[in-house]
Amino acid sequence: MADEKTANAKPVAAVLEAINFDSNGLVAAIAQQHDTGEVLMLAWMDREAVTKTLETGRVHYWSRSRQALWPKGDTSGNTQSLVEFRIDCDADAVLLQVNQIGVACHTGKRSCFFTAVRGGKLETIG
Amino acid sequence: MADEKTANAKPVAAVLEAINFDSNGLVAAIAQQHDTGEVLMLAWMDREAVTKTLETGRVHYWSRSRQALWPKGDTSGNTQSLVEFRIDCDADAVLLQVNQIGVACHTGKRSCFFTAVRGGKLETIG
Repeated sequence: MADEKTANAKPVAAVLEAINFDSNGLVAAIAQQHDTGEVLMLAWMDREAVTKTLETGRVHYWSRSRQALWPKGDTSGNTQSLVEFRIDCDADAVLLQVNQIGVACHTGKRSCFFTAVRGGKLETIG
Repeated sequence: MADEKTANAKPVAAVLEAINFDSNGLVAAIAQQHDTGEVLMLAWMDREAVTKTLETGRVHYWSRSRQALWPKGDTSGNTQSLVEFRIDCDADAVLLQVNQIGVACHTGKRSCFFTAVRGGKLETIG
């Protein structure tokens, strides 16, 4: 266990170093279903959320409304397992390619992006 | 022309009303290639960028670094045409399904998310 922890410590530190966290210590995180390409949600991560996600393979966010670490699916069971962690060119956004268990959205929809502007009107889809 | 403007005015107002812009008047915008599902970039939009995007069908952002309206591809020619505009469940993020001409990233990469954490290391992909 100690060895495993040591093995992970350096890579996680390199990732934390690479990311440009904003003045609130957060980075925007897009979650995308790894095989279908569906964009599931946009949330935020702090250093601890990034660390926990990389160390455990289970996606953690920072809940801005609850101001707390948010292990995704903790109450709903709708967890996300990490398939790939990507960082953008200016390192102020990350893309999490995940395997979503159940639904991503608290409304019960698979994706949070279920409102579309169609024919000039807001329409619920999906 | 006047009629066209009037026809668009109301739907755009409804979309602006629906979006929860942050304290800086911005909303996070994910751009995704509409047919392949590739996530291209994350940027920000203000009310004017949303309005111009919906009215013209060409994606506009707000450049936080330049503090100015950013008609995507204005200098590079790498424009994005809007295929679908979606809003998330709490209306603080939008998903733009687009047709990207050329590349999305200023580095010349198709997607801004070209750095992956693989085997515990940061790796350039794509």
